[in-house]
Amino acid sequence: MTHQIAILGASGYTGAELVRLIATHPTFEVAALSADRKAGMQMRQVFPHLRHLDLPELVKIDEIDFTGIDLCFCALPHVASQQIIPSIPEHVKIVDLSADFRLRDPADYEKWYGQPHQAVGVQGQAVYGLTEFYRDQIRGARLVAGTGCNAATGQFALRPLIAAGVIDLDEIIVDLKAGASGAGRSLKEHLLFSEMFENVKGYSLGSTHRHLGEFDQEFGAIAGRPVEIIFTPHLIAATRGILISAYLRGEAQAIHDTFVAAYADEPFVQVLPLGQAPAMKDVRGSNFVHVGVVGDRRPGRATVIATLDNLTKGSSGQAVQNANLMLAEPETAGLMLAPLYP
Amino acid sequence: MTHQIAILGASGYTGAELVRLIATHPTFEVAALSADRKAGMQMRQVFPHLRHLDLPELVKIDEIDFTGIDLCFCALPHVASQQIIPSIPEHVKIVDLSADFRLRDPADYEKWYGQPHQAVGVQGQAVYGLTEFYRDQIRGARLVAGTGCNAATGQFALRPLIAAGVIDLDEIIVDLKAGASGAGRSLKEHLLFSEMFENVKGYSLGSTHRHLGEFDQEFGAIAGRPVEIIFTPHLIAATRGILISAYLRGEAQAIHDTFVAAYADEPFVQVLPLGQAPAMKDVRGSNFVHVGVVGDRRPGRATVIATLDNLTKGSSGQAVQNANLMLAEPETAGLMLAPLYP
Amino acid sequence: MTHQIAILGASGYTGAELVRLIATHPTFEVAALSADRKAGMQMRQVFPHLRHLDLPELVKIDEIDFTGIDLCFCALPHVASQQIIPSIPEHVKIVDLSADFRLRDPADYEKWYGQPHQAVGVQGQAVYGLTEFYRDQIRGARLVAGTGCNAATGQFALRPLIAAGVIDLDEIIVDLKAGASGAGRSLKEHLLFSEMFENVKGYSLGSTHRHLGEFDQEFGAIAGRPVEIIFTPHLIAATRGILISAYLRGEAQAIHDTFVAAYADEPFVQVLPLGQAPAMKDVRGSNFVHVGVVGDRRPGRATVIATLDNLTKGSSGQAVQNANLMLAEPETAGLMLAPLYP
Amino acid sequence: MTHQIAILGASGYTGAELVRLIATHPTFEVAALSADRKAGMQMRQVFPHLRHLDLPELVKIDEIDFTGIDLCFCALPHVASQQIIPSIPEHVKIVDLSADFRLRDPADYEKWYGQPHQAVGVQGQAVYGLTEFYRDQIRGARLVAGTGCNAATGQFALRPLIAAGVIDLDEIIVDLKAGASGAGRSLKEHLLFSEMFENVKGYSLGSTHRHLGEFDQEFGAIAGRPVEIIFTPHLIAATRGILISAYLRGEAQAIHDTFVAAYADEPFVQVLPLGQAPAMKDVRGSNFVHVGVVGDRRPGRATVIATLDNLTKGSSGQAVQNANLMLAEPETAGLMLAPLYP
Repeated sequence: MTHQIAILGASGYTGAELVRLIATHPTFEVAALSADRKAGMQMRQVFPHLRHLDLPELVKIDEIDFTGIDLCFCALPHVASQQIIPSIPEHVKIVDLSADFRLRDPADYEKWYGQPHQAVGVQGQAVYGLTEFYRDQIRGARLVAGTGCNAATGQFALRPLIAAGVIDLDEIIVDLKAGASGAGRSLKEHLLFSEMFENVKGYSLGSTHRHLGEFDQEFGAIAGRPVEIIFTPHLIAATRGILISAYLRGEAQAIHDTFVAAYADEPFVQVLPLGQAPAMKDVRGSNFVHVGVVGDRRPGRATVIATLDNLTKGSSGQAVQNANLMLAEPETAGLMLAPLYP
Repeated sequence: MTHQIAILGASGYTGAELVRLIATHPTFEVAALSADRKAGMQMRQVFPHLRHLDLPELVKIDEIDFTGIDLCFCALPHVASQQIIPSIPEHVKIVDLSADFRLRDPADYEKWYGQPHQAVGVQGQAVYGLTEFYRDQIRGARLVAGTGCNAATGQFALRPLIAAGVIDLDEIIVDLKAGASGAGRSLKEHLLFSEMFENVKGYSLGSTHRHLGEFDQEFGAIAGRPVEIIFTPHLIAATRGILISAYLRGEAQAIHDTFVAAYADEPFVQVLPLGQAPAMKDVRGSNFVHVGVVGDRRPGRATVIATLDNLTKGSSGQAVQNANLMLAEPETAGLMLAPLYP
Repeated sequence: MTHQIAILGASGYTGAELVRLIATHPTFEVAALSADRKAGMQMRQVFPHLRHLDLPELVKIDEIDFTGIDLCFCALPHVASQQIIPSIPEHVKIVDLSADFRLRDPADYEKWYGQPHQAVGVQGQAVYGLTEFYRDQIRGARLVAGTGCNAATGQFALRPLIAAGVIDLDEIIVDLKAGASGAGRSLKEHLLFSEMFENVKGYSLGSTHRHLGEFDQEFGAIAGRPVEIIFTPHLIAATRGILISAYLRGEAQAIHDTFVAAYADEPFVQVLPLGQAPAMKDVRGSNFVHVGVVGDRRPGRATVIATLDNLTKGSSGQAVQNANLMLAEPETAGLMLAPLYP
Repeated sequence: MTHQIAILGASGYTGAELVRLIATHPTFEVAALSADRKAGMQMRQVFPHLRHLDLPELVKIDEIDFTGIDLCFCALPHVASQQIIPSIPEHVKIVDLSADFRLRDPADYEKWYGQPHQAVGVQGQAVYGLTEFYRDQIRGARLVAGTGCNAATGQFALRPLIAAGVIDLDEIIVDLKAGASGAGRSLKEHLLFSEMFENVKGYSLGSTHRHLGEFDQEFGAIAGRPVEIIFTPHLIAATRGILISAYLRGEAQAIHDTFVAAYADEPFVQVLPLGQAPAMKDVRGSNFVHVGVVGDRRPGRATVIATLDNLTKGSSGQAVQNANLMLAEPETAGLMLAPLYP
């Protein structure tokens, strides 16, 4: 049975990535695409790499007839998402890729995003979208809130360790390296090629990045007490990919054992042999996460290195994975594409 | 029905690309992988991005039991290919990705590759592997010789025009830009990151590149007379991708009409609207070719711009496309993966 | 004796490059910097790489006191330049880096830039700024119009050949590859890192690029008849650098001899041995031009490959070279910095 | 007065960088260049970007007449350095760029480099080459041992803090990102363009990198007790540049005050305003170091970000700086070149 899919905000990178994945998905079919400022254009005019696909014209959101739509991916910017989602008909399941429904407490939203939440009621129905850890709730959800891409990477590296109590919760330091596409197709000076090429730069320094709202919420819930990690992202000269190095207090062997147990049955999470670390390009274009653990010359210290593709597992691939569950399809449907290397 | 596939020379980039494509192919199964110097290793040790796949161990070629093998991709260097292929059992169909069986006349091989051909008999059975133009012969072939990646790009841009007589055959100038992966994983100084990054350099200057052997053979056959194009490849700071700009004498409209007619039913060749040109990244990681035609301020002059991914349509994707035909599968099976953008 | 220098439009890449060069120039001193939208800021806030320099604050143009200024570099966008330059006091010499005063005939300006010229009188005083070919006029000029960076590259490759009559003037095809910095620091989608990385794309196709105005003017003047070259620029994934491949009818030996003779005494132009071609990174960050000539398998055909750094020899370095002449300093003063490699 | 300079190992990247810097140095003159495997070639054949320079031919080391040589830069690999240096005539001052004379205790050398030191006697004369901290000893030294490039970066970020006692010595975590040129021009698979492009990968994980020998030696000496930092370098897709993020326990304000005081008179070290962090490209091609300090949301935690160009301040620029002192020239002679941006 084919599921009819709508994508709101199709002219951004996560929108294009959704279309790429659905193009070879066995049961999903793109039925509607919105892009307010590009309404009236064909997708191939906005993204020529999709030229071979027969896709509906881009329209404004209010032009979409949701009657036959089974599921809607909402790839709009935050704030826009919370304004639109309440108006989507109840029969339509929703996977939101924005930041708007990730934080369960509206006060947290206001703290990290600087303004009051405008759809507190809908927020209450949202399930946090990190599939591997919210599988059961996602299956029955009407609205799933996709995670931040940085937040996803950090959680794959830390959730099992916090749950198992194998690391010191007060000494978690995460250094993150991320490519440009996580910032989308927006026109900002620091995203220009000439600025980024042969460059590395920290941003949101001093543990001020918004995705810390997700870390705080999730890690606190697992630990049953506040967990405040130290977190610095760096923008690197890559398009896709996030790699984190987490500096931890704990035994490497216990950490590795914990990962092996936690991820044994996960189709998308690969744990490397103890002492090995993944490279960022090993997951490019795929829905896989690679996780490695290395001990340190200092006893009781270890480093966890984890990597994923921000546009796939960090956002649009995760969204399709969640949609598969919501529509009772196999979780891996359309997502077993191997990484593109080199 | 599943086809059992062997890949010889699996530790190179074209080998890895074959595995990537077969990973989501509906009816192909990797049954044997060879890599002489890495025999005994797992593929995931050589290419960690393939970690999620359950693949046979790398072995030496003579350790392969060809009994149940239906088709063998030979991704060995040239010369090695002509030494190995004669010894492969007759029931095994072969797609060779090297340069060894592309040139029908052994004298041409000696001219361009600097040594006598060692398997002239087998050469006689080989079909040239540019699928769109040799489809019928490929269907019945036992041995198909995959084209050069540069040669493929140039032929998509020029074959229909030569056949239709819409351009001056004595005035064809092709400027080509190619990424590094076409040169494989070999350790050469000019392929080092520090040398290539933020660089562009012409090579095989003065129309001396070996792929001219293919151009001469094919274009001459179509035209029924010698056609000597002028051809300069440039190495650019990209991993995947070839883009050519062909400077031609002819009317842009007639050229465009010719392409539209020639490629109307081709699933992998996209002709852009007249006046538009493709970008190299529009086809990355896919089996698609994009072709554009632009007129010039000078009447009777036109530029054709064509692009493909050298590892996919330029080699391993083309190889799978040919294997599909040889094994009576749908030609597009496993190959409709959308390009990876950005 | 120290010369007091003003730079208008200092917040762009050519402005920053002027400051970089003047930082180690023996007799130039930056006395004023303008940047209208960033007035009130320090240069190190706009360009942190200049943090070590003691520079005047950025001001609006009308805040500059030109009394003690000897020479003004005008690095404003075109149109802005022609509006400002007429108001600069007569005692100030001017090197303009915009397109506004390059074309001697106002009708040509209107043809290529789409609007009437607003300072036709000043245009009459301007000398075209390709130093190696206008040295004497530049020495005595009050206003020098810096060339386009693409136009400069093409002229180094073609002027001596046209003058010497060693190539067919009706068959000049130039394929150009250029990095992003030539387009400046402007916020345009196609200049985003995610768009340009691992990409190549032709632009201003069909010989429609504005720098053709300069080629037509200059080549026509040398030849004494119209010369219309065919010209396609390509945007490549590099920050700095332009490399052209010019496909010509002529004898490689005669072409090479012509270059050797023409550039024998030029400090910044390096002619490679016949048969060798330069790489783009060989001139990065320097004021050098490298020129190579290669014959073709077809008799009577040759390729000229030339490269320079668009921000240095293609614009700000050329501007300093001209300023040196205008202020009676040694032509090479401050400009012998070796290229940055790798 | 001109100083005659010899460069041993001129065919590597640090050798080329020395030539680049000396090309515009006011009093240094390249008198001899060695490169054993490329003896008999011209430097411009090995590094075409130096084509404009009139340089001596490359020779074997034993062909060099040291009679008139004032100072020798030894840019050989480690081990080779300790074999050659004892045989250089006593009147020649030496700046060694290898790892061979950095570690004062031969047992440390054996521990980190896996073999006994072969020139223990010469080791005793060597002064550690981090100019800003060993200035007086360097002035009078005959042999200066240039620091590791990673080691230099870390020391600029940590030495003043350890000396001032403003950070917890047992909790120093350093995450380093480095471009490819630090690994030289050697043919290794992981340094190929196709491997590094759009990639990030940790190496020497678990605090096993050899430069820890320098950190241990230097930080221990300052603190008067062992200091074992946790240190992970990452290879990133850049040619030049190292950026470190050091995660520390201490007050950001005190840390910043310490830097401001320590580096107040340093011509090459720039301390950013508190709360700001440098970008790697801000120092490219220059001898500058940029250091920033940012507080954290968690009290008592701070991050120090420091960056330099590994080939300049991290090796060849530092070497020239030391040579200036040894030859009684101004310390900044030839080294005030502004960074190349963008």
